[in-house]
Amino acid sequence: MATLLFSGGTVVTADGSYRADVRVADGRIDSISTGEIGAGGAPADERVDCTGKLLLPGGVDVHTHLDSRMMGTVTADDFGTGTRAAACGGTTTIVDFALQVAGERLGDTVTRYHERADGRAAVDYGFHIAVTDLYDGALNDLPGIVDGGVTSVKVFMAYRGSLMVDDGELFDILRTSGRLGARVCVHAENGDVIDRMAADLVAQGKVGPKYHELSRPAATEVEAVHRAIRISRMADAPIYFVHLSTADSAAAVAAARAEEWPVSAETCTHYLTLGPELYDGPGFEAAKYVLTPPLRERAHRDALWKNLRTGGLGVVSSDHCPFCFSEQKELGRDDFRKIPNGGPGVEHRMSVVYGLGVHEGKLGIERFVDVTATTPAKSFGLFPRKGTIMVGGDADLVVLDPAGSTTISARTQNQNVDYALWEGHTVPGRIERVYSRGELVAKDGAFVGRAGHGRFQARATV
Amino acid sequence: MATLLFSGGTVVTADGSYRADVRVADGRIDSISTGEIGAGGAPADERVDCTGKLLLPGGVDVHTHLDSRMMGTVTADDFGTGTRAAACGGTTTIVDFALQVAGERLGDTVTRYHERADGRAAVDYGFHIAVTDLYDGALNDLPGIVDGGVTSVKVFMAYRGSLMVDDGELFDILRTSGRLGARVCVHAENGDVIDRMAADLVAQGKVGPKYHELSRPAATEVEAVHRAIRISRMADAPIYFVHLSTADSAAAVAAARAEEWPVSAETCTHYLTLGPELYDGPGFEAAKYVLTPPLRERAHRDALWKNLRTGGLGVVSSDHCPFCFSEQKELGRDDFRKIPNGGPGVEHRMSVVYGLGVHEGKLGIERFVDVTATTPAKSFGLFPRKGTIMVGGDADLVVLDPAGSTTISARTQNQNVDYALWEGHTVPGRIERVYSRGELVAKDGAFVGRAGHGRFQARATV
Amino acid sequence: MATLLFSGGTVVTADGSYRADVRVADGRIDSISTGEIGAGGAPADERVDCTGKLLLPGGVDVHTHLDSRMMGTVTADDFGTGTRAAACGGTTTIVDFALQVAGERLGDTVTRYHERADGRAAVDYGFHIAVTDLYDGALNDLPGIVDGGVTSVKVFMAYRGSLMVDDGELFDILRTSGRLGARVCVHAENGDVIDRMAADLVAQGKVGPKYHELSRPAATEVEAVHRAIRISRMADAPIYFVHLSTADSAAAVAAARAEEWPVSAETCTHYLTLGPELYDGPGFEAAKYVLTPPLRERAHRDALWKNLRTGGLGVVSSDHCPFCFSEQKELGRDDFRKIPNGGPGVEHRMSVVYGLGVHEGKLGIERFVDVTATTPAKSFGLFPRKGTIMVGGDADLVVLDPAGSTTISARTQNQNVDYALWEGHTVPGRIERVYSRGELVAKDGAFVGRAGHGRFQARATV
Amino acid sequence: MATLLFSGGTVVTADGSYRADVRVADGRIDSISTGEIGAGGAPADERVDCTGKLLLPGGVDVHTHLDSRMMGTVTADDFGTGTRAAACGGTTTIVDFALQVAGERLGDTVTRYHERADGRAAVDYGFHIAVTDLYDGALNDLPGIVDGGVTSVKVFMAYRGSLMVDDGELFDILRTSGRLGARVCVHAENGDVIDRMAADLVAQGKVGPKYHELSRPAATEVEAVHRAIRISRMADAPIYFVHLSTADSAAAVAAARAEEWPVSAETCTHYLTLGPELYDGPGFEAAKYVLTPPLRERAHRDALWKNLRTGGLGVVSSDHCPFCFSEQKELGRDDFRKIPNGGPGVEHRMSVVYGLGVHEGKLGIERFVDVTATTPAKSFGLFPRKGTIMVGGDADLVVLDPAGSTTISARTQNQNVDYALWEGHTVPGRIERVYSRGELVAKDGAFVGRAGHGRFQARATV
Repeated sequence: MATLLFSGGTVVTADGSYRADVRVADGRIDSISTGEIGAGGAPADERVDCTGKLLLPGGVDVHTHLDSRMMGTVTADDFGTGTRAAACGGTTTIVDFALQVAGERLGDTVTRYHERADGRAAVDYGFHIAVTDLYDGALNDLPGIVDGGVTSVKVFMAYRGSLMVDDGELFDILRTSGRLGARVCVHAENGDVIDRMAADLVAQGKVGPKYHELSRPAATEVEAVHRAIRISRMADAPIYFVHLSTADSAAAVAAARAEEWPVSAETCTHYLTLGPELYDGPGFEAAKYVLTPPLRERAHRDALWKNLRTGGLGVVSSDHCPFCFSEQKELGRDDFRKIPNGGPGVEHRMSVVYGLGVHEGKLGIERFVDVTATTPAKSFGLFPRKGTIMVGGDADLVVLDPAGSTTISARTQNQNVDYALWEGHTVPGRIERVYSRGELVAKDGAFVGRAGHGRFQARATV
Repeated sequence: MATLLFSGGTVVTADGSYRADVRVADGRIDSISTGEIGAGGAPADERVDCTGKLLLPGGVDVHTHLDSRMMGTVTADDFGTGTRAAACGGTTTIVDFALQVAGERLGDTVTRYHERADGRAAVDYGFHIAVTDLYDGALNDLPGIVDGGVTSVKVFMAYRGSLMVDDGELFDILRTSGRLGARVCVHAENGDVIDRMAADLVAQGKVGPKYHELSRPAATEVEAVHRAIRISRMADAPIYFVHLSTADSAAAVAAARAEEWPVSAETCTHYLTLGPELYDGPGFEAAKYVLTPPLRERAHRDALWKNLRTGGLGVVSSDHCPFCFSEQKELGRDDFRKIPNGGPGVEHRMSVVYGLGVHEGKLGIERFVDVTATTPAKSFGLFPRKGTIMVGGDADLVVLDPAGSTTISARTQNQNVDYALWEGHTVPGRIERVYSRGELVAKDGAFVGRAGHGRFQARATV
Repeated sequence: MATLLFSGGTVVTADGSYRADVRVADGRIDSISTGEIGAGGAPADERVDCTGKLLLPGGVDVHTHLDSRMMGTVTADDFGTGTRAAACGGTTTIVDFALQVAGERLGDTVTRYHERADGRAAVDYGFHIAVTDLYDGALNDLPGIVDGGVTSVKVFMAYRGSLMVDDGELFDILRTSGRLGARVCVHAENGDVIDRMAADLVAQGKVGPKYHELSRPAATEVEAVHRAIRISRMADAPIYFVHLSTADSAAAVAAARAEEWPVSAETCTHYLTLGPELYDGPGFEAAKYVLTPPLRERAHRDALWKNLRTGGLGVVSSDHCPFCFSEQKELGRDDFRKIPNGGPGVEHRMSVVYGLGVHEGKLGIERFVDVTATTPAKSFGLFPRKGTIMVGGDADLVVLDPAGSTTISARTQNQNVDYALWEGHTVPGRIERVYSRGELVAKDGAFVGRAGHGRFQARATV
Repeated sequence: MATLLFSGGTVVTADGSYRADVRVADGRIDSISTGEIGAGGAPADERVDCTGKLLLPGGVDVHTHLDSRMMGTVTADDFGTGTRAAACGGTTTIVDFALQVAGERLGDTVTRYHERADGRAAVDYGFHIAVTDLYDGALNDLPGIVDGGVTSVKVFMAYRGSLMVDDGELFDILRTSGRLGARVCVHAENGDVIDRMAADLVAQGKVGPKYHELSRPAATEVEAVHRAIRISRMADAPIYFVHLSTADSAAAVAAARAEEWPVSAETCTHYLTLGPELYDGPGFEAAKYVLTPPLRERAHRDALWKNLRTGGLGVVSSDHCPFCFSEQKELGRDDFRKIPNGGPGVEHRMSVVYGLGVHEGKLGIERFVDVTATTPAKSFGLFPRKGTIMVGGDADLVVLDPAGSTTISARTQNQNVDYALWEGHTVPGRIERVYSRGELVAKDGAFVGRAGHGRFQARATV
């Protein structure tokens, strides 16, 4: 395999930024040097000129839903299209949810997802196992799952009757996972209260997509976060919250972390950057933003940025869960409860967080790398192979031009969906080149890699 | 200048640990590589075999008092002996206090300290300017000081009549420093209340060294910390607390940081590891531990370790302020208020924090590097030249053998003082070699460098 | 009806203590005077000499379970014996739980309890409606219940399968109650987690009564309290916690109250005064203390007293839920989960809180009156008819001799149960005489009233 | 002395409201009765028909400055005019500050104030001793002061050079007072920081009255409150804050109280009801509102009301410190620092708090009585003689017509000052009659009592 030299750029890690040349051999970084005469830098077969550019670790997105059956339909991206979009957006590793269907043994679920991803993925990938049916013996099946490199378990505190586990099940899963060193990822919303609120709204004839938001007020998330933290303490097990959207949730996590409770959390690109005024759009437009939890007011967004800076939150993920507006979102035209919950974003996470975060002064560049790559990798057993620029690590690299810009549109995106959450936004910063294990997979937003390049990543336990 | 290759060791930074070879040329790190064939590693003139060893950034100790006149005497180490001791203990940069005497212009103070250090120092050094007399025009003299690379200002909230500034002066210094980008370092104790408590004890005939502790209860520190945080907010300026010793102080800092107030703080080696039972020693022994603030109970020490882990505290310094037991400490035989306040420690900081922190599971190895080198360097404008292992940075390096051990004793130490705070302790870990800008300055605890090698470090503003 | 004059005593109310004569006519207080010549005090038919005594409002115990079918048996006191015991202990009003059985309409439940109490009760009484089965239309039946003077609703967050409501039902009940001005009383424990913990213990062969305690750690209560507070906020309705037993629960309530959330709470006599060492008793003795929640460590008890003083907690109730040791408690000899949960206490609440609270300096005498009579009456729509000494109010009065003492024993008690929680304790203070609406109902601990004297109290809404 | 019967009204105490007749003999309440035939109510010489009216305890105002030399002038009301105004406004007891002048022994200060008040006061009065010069031996003089019924000590944390004590003096005064059972009242502002801020403003030519406000931001009060609470803890002594004006101060007090620290506090009528927009008035108008601390934004006012409801704050006082606009306020025309700090208010406190608090739903009527009479009396050793309606207590009574209204104007007021803070306000509620120890002292806002009626009140210790 050819050796590569990324020369003249500014290397950025969570810890600092510095001028250096990075050499890659056999898909791994084998040298970082000043590039001065005589310093490191055995000659390389190819030189990538990074002058004036930032050289970043490839993004790690730990929250995607590819080829996933939910709410009566299937997400619009499969492992082929979804990972191509990831690559184009500067994300070189994803961790997707292997979602158990009722009655299915957990091992079978994982096998099913391996089959879906194998040979199709354009970038590296791993799985969380999402437990929705705690059948007799399910806890005994967990060690095998974990041994297979699926070292995290997802549960839902909402969607009674389909995905939800009750507090006793949550407790049991936490206890078992804790013993195994597997991290439990929690979707925290009080589903029972939400169901009552939603039913009330529908009973009043309030069936439009805007009411999705009103049926899931901030307090329904906050309550569940507090509850899950307490249950994880009783179970003596680490817990990780997915897609936090509110100021008080972030505060609860930060407070627990200050007490060294093993609690951590992510927010998502859209909770940082989009507001609920989008629910006031014309016609059925608002359905595009029917995500769970819903978009929140500015005070929440400000608090999320703040917690990313202070460390209350450690990760920004995409929660890429794409459904086409046409035919899919439309399933809920007459009842917001039937609109598939989710939106696309794996392709735009890095650009949006860079452009609206770093460039606007909300996040330092080192912290940007931390929350989009380093901490996700550390949290899910991928570090230091993934998530940083370090000799010995995989050469997953992004060349970003801070002087460029990126325009987001459904017309030009690689995501297999008919709209984009940031449609029409032009954000500062341009991802020029993306490398996965030393191979160029995307250039100027276009995919130049290949299906099947991506490999399953067996992840370490906590 | 010869090139050096540190090969086979585990490189540790605040961000992670990994196997790599580090090459040094002209006193700087010019390459980090896997050491595999063809990877980096232009041949070096000399190879340092680090197999089985940790390769750490040289320690940065931002709190020392060398050749300093205080409480009627002078600290026992000057810039010659003090920096030799630092080198032997793995510390390759110190920031000392240029302590103004009453009536002295600030520029003259700095000049005086330059003269003391120049040609004597064995490792690199910088100064904080310690303002004790806010003469008319003092604030106007500050910009010149800062321009000269002295980018931090020390003030005392205790010792009325000698060192103390009042709240109005603190406010003024903060405002001016904030505008200049200089960081204000605060000794936070309520001196007025302490003076009353001390006078009361003496009036009751309680004059022994133990009463030093009782005259400075935790609450006197905690109050001052809260006050100074609030005053810094009014002045809209960053603040840094030196030598925090109590749980509640650390909590106050952590809370302020969680709100993004620009507050940071250090604790010291002895507050982490020594307890107040030492004040019950026989005869006048306790005078050795008459430090300010005094040693605290275990609950405080546990909280300090916790805050080092969670980020409430970012720095461990030595507060090296050595006075010989004989003749110096004895000045206070009849009245604890006259015992010179301080103890030695620049030589033992790295060993003790490693041995009692990392080895006992209180601190991860990466966090050890962070609090002893990286964050001190970042906090005081020395990063990334100092405080990490990064290509382009100074080759200040420590080779530590985790399988070795270190025994501390006054008989063997390099500090110019007749006792050691950790006398007789044997701690895990052995600092084998210490390099300053690529030059070997200490080997197995013995000084092999030279006076005058150390250079003044003009530091950046905040 | 004869007039009565209570002369020479110290009248105690929540607001203050003072020397005064209290005159009663037609069962109500019609004058309070200094007793000086010419002051108030039209002549009375009978004079009760209270010199040296305290004259207190009759106790209001808002948490009793009389004649109640629970856990496969029936509580040992019915409305006859239970209210006699109340009277003897200085309690002149109780509010009992009308406990719905599955499938029963709420109106029928109340009717059933009226039949049980009517003609039997020795002191005044009211009902809470305890909803355990939220049948279709149940919420529509609530207004009728409230109109009938049953202005509070009890729900359980534990005991899935028998008593427990889920979060959605709790939310619905709160919303409806809030609109009606009815107060919702919550048994707050995370039943699902407890059931898992208990099942685990039993699976390990840990079946003795001590394991009851271990299956219900403090955190199971604390979690439920936080959750219920949040759900009550979403429902915009007041909430009242029964039988809080832990420091953190009390803190949560206090914090909510400080923010003016309409949250209030009681603790019980036994949580203030008895500790978990009682679970270490010989043989099956510990079953006597199988109460829910279980008895807690001293730190919790101290916190409960503190919160009674500071107002975090406003009420001490008995949670009188008596089961005989013989035959009843014994149902759980082989499995602690089958031990009927509860203990006797309506008779001893006033004596124990006075003796162990007021006399030992944990509670001021005015606050004692407040938490045993005034605030319970105010909280449940009985004030100012009940709960204080005020002209116009019912003449429910207790004459207490602070110089006397009370010895508690199953042999001498009026409760219809074969053990006493404070067996053998002698506490300072002696309740000499108890009056209900001007009639002497107990004297020196012996009942001198009559069945049927007690009247149903239709209570006001919030 | 004639007996009086207040019949047909609603008696209001902190604990409850009820219909009753109140009989007065010899200046004290000797009977409270239902007024039904045969109930209490020995015939009285005079009947005051209170039908439709509220019968309240006379107000207790614990913060006035009469005949007091401050800031180069003397307050405009002396003990004659000031207590007449108090009487007309429904306040029947004041506690004024005996303000030490530099060099004066404390006993002489008290004697001086006795001479000023004696024979002039129209209502009852007491003194706080305000210590401004802690001369040698001052602490030894305190016991004599306390023995003389002056059981509270005032200190200032602002006004260096005239009134201010430093932290050491505060500590000493607290310790001594704590031992004596005297309560220390603290004016909490960081005077040193304020002086710097004020000097800066003046240096910038910002000399108008508006800059008074800007030189004393909320944070200067909040800091001092936190500091004083901590110092009182070190001194193990109760502390009482005068004139709190900010949300965070109130929160600090509430938090301390929740932990049972013996901290209590008042706010003042104007901090509840007037805002800083008054500093934008034309010309020198704003000088009328140059009070210390200054008026605050709505969020602070809302928080003060909230804390009055929740108990964080217990007292509303007037801080009556009147200076005429003409000649007095004008002393600071060219420099806001020379404007005498203070405003009139003893006459309007009861009306304004009733009208803008009770009537607008911010305060329950019972809580109104509590904060204007009961808690002030309890806090300063006057209860139950003063501060409630209780048999045996002084017949200090106010008849208030809730259906009436009160218009405030300098033209009609009794205060000896040329403006009113609430000029032109018409507030609901009318104080019709005011009685001091059974004597009518004011009727419909006009004084009908006599100079010299008022008696010095020797107050109890804590």
